[in-house]
Amino acid sequence: MSTCNATFYGVGVGPGDPELITLKAARIIKSADVVAYITNTKGGSVARNIASNVLAEAHSAQTTLPIEISMSIGRADINTAYDKAASLIIASMQKGKSVAFLCEGDPLFFGSFIYLMDRISEYQNCQIIPGITSVNAASAQLATPLTILSEDMAIISSRSTDKKIADTLKAYDTVAILKAGPQLPRLAVLLQTVGRADETQYIEYATHESEKIIRDLSLITDKKGPYFSLLLITRKEREYRCD
Amino acid sequence: MSTCNATFYGVGVGPGDPELITLKAARIIKSADVVAYITNTKGGSVARNIASNVLAEAHSAQTTLPIEISMSIGRADINTAYDKAASLIIASMQKGKSVAFLCEGDPLFFGSFIYLMDRISEYQNCQIIPGITSVNAASAQLATPLTILSEDMAIISSRSTDKKIADTLKAYDTVAILKAGPQLPRLAVLLQTVGRADETQYIEYATHESEKIIRDLSLITDKKGPYFSLLLITRKEREYRCD
Repeated sequence: MSTCNATFYGVGVGPGDPELITLKAARIIKSADVVAYITNTKGGSVARNIASNVLAEAHSAQTTLPIEISMSIGRADINTAYDKAASLIIASMQKGKSVAFLCEGDPLFFGSFIYLMDRISEYQNCQIIPGITSVNAASAQLATPLTILSEDMAIISSRSTDKKIADTLKAYDTVAILKAGPQLPRLAVLLQTVGRADETQYIEYATHESEKIIRDLSLITDKKGPYFSLLLITRKEREYRCD
Repeated sequence: MSTCNATFYGVGVGPGDPELITLKAARIIKSADVVAYITNTKGGSVARNIASNVLAEAHSAQTTLPIEISMSIGRADINTAYDKAASLIIASMQKGKSVAFLCEGDPLFFGSFIYLMDRISEYQNCQIIPGITSVNAASAQLATPLTILSEDMAIISSRSTDKKIADTLKAYDTVAILKAGPQLPRLAVLLQTVGRADETQYIEYATHESEKIIRDLSLITDKKGPYFSLLLITRKEREYRCD
């Protein structure tokens, strides 16, 4: 495949609040020849929704490239869908068209952009515009510092093993457990076991309109939550003063 | 002290590129009655420099509140400086004036805003506008994903003990070691010892004009770098495909 001067942009649109898009992301979204994004089977797209105000100011010749990826389809089919999307993006770029792919949060932090970059960067110029992650958004909405002075932090998925989660909770001052909702009852037991339940806050859809915060873990032990949710565990005793 | 309706904003201005400020941060910086920021003894301020384009569009009645905090002064003096700054901010707010405090990166990720929030939130309304961190900026500039699928990540300071750093490098797929520059020779030895030197990239001043990237750790073993720098360690073999 030939290369050309068009660029494939991975554009982070942030955690949900449409204002938490960067000036750079807004500029590139407005000026791109093609805007691509993942949709579900009904055509819905979280990333496009977040960027809708910005997209409304795009130039009139801009075209869209919706990429339908359903989490309910098999893994082989997901790979086929990414292969097909990568081919379409490369085809646009070979015509000299820049493509901006919209990503919730940050493109390189558990982002679907990674799979497209892997397929495209060998042939075409890629550039990444970082975005605000759900972890930073959660910290802001909870008004809880992620890290102070010499504190350390670990970020793990709720799908990690019990041992991995327990070891992480014991060894790190701050822990973010992502995609916590579907695993909440199990995580609540783990947090009790390692003695950090009272250092835990829960947030779902941080900065979205449907944001929900629970600061008392005892209220959530027997309930599940959505995929877009996390637990933030921080030390109760923290050193705020420089001494 | 009395409370009122003014708000103290912790505003992340991102890692260095003036375009990596969010729309929300830009709006609040432009409209705040008072803009506060840390300066060094010569009056220089990294956060103010990053926001200078936005500040140029602020309303004409806006005032500034420079807070001189020198890292070279003693810890007691730093606390006194924060106490004094908090008093000045509270005094402005008691006159009904909103105050936006500019922070490099994210306000709650190793940010100086944390010390002010600790002193002010008891008395006054605080709101945090998250910012792009140096970790996300580094990942974007290196075009290296932070986390894919089930990968986990830890963020530690270069001032951590040798054991902590080695344990972290062994247990986590992705590791960011912050403030790496001053400790580079020591860190290079540690990375060799645990067998992850060839998975390490170095970046200083990510997204600043003076950004510098080193992808081959053997080139940096005997040199030191600046404070605003980090090492990003990611697995050589990564699972990009969903299978």
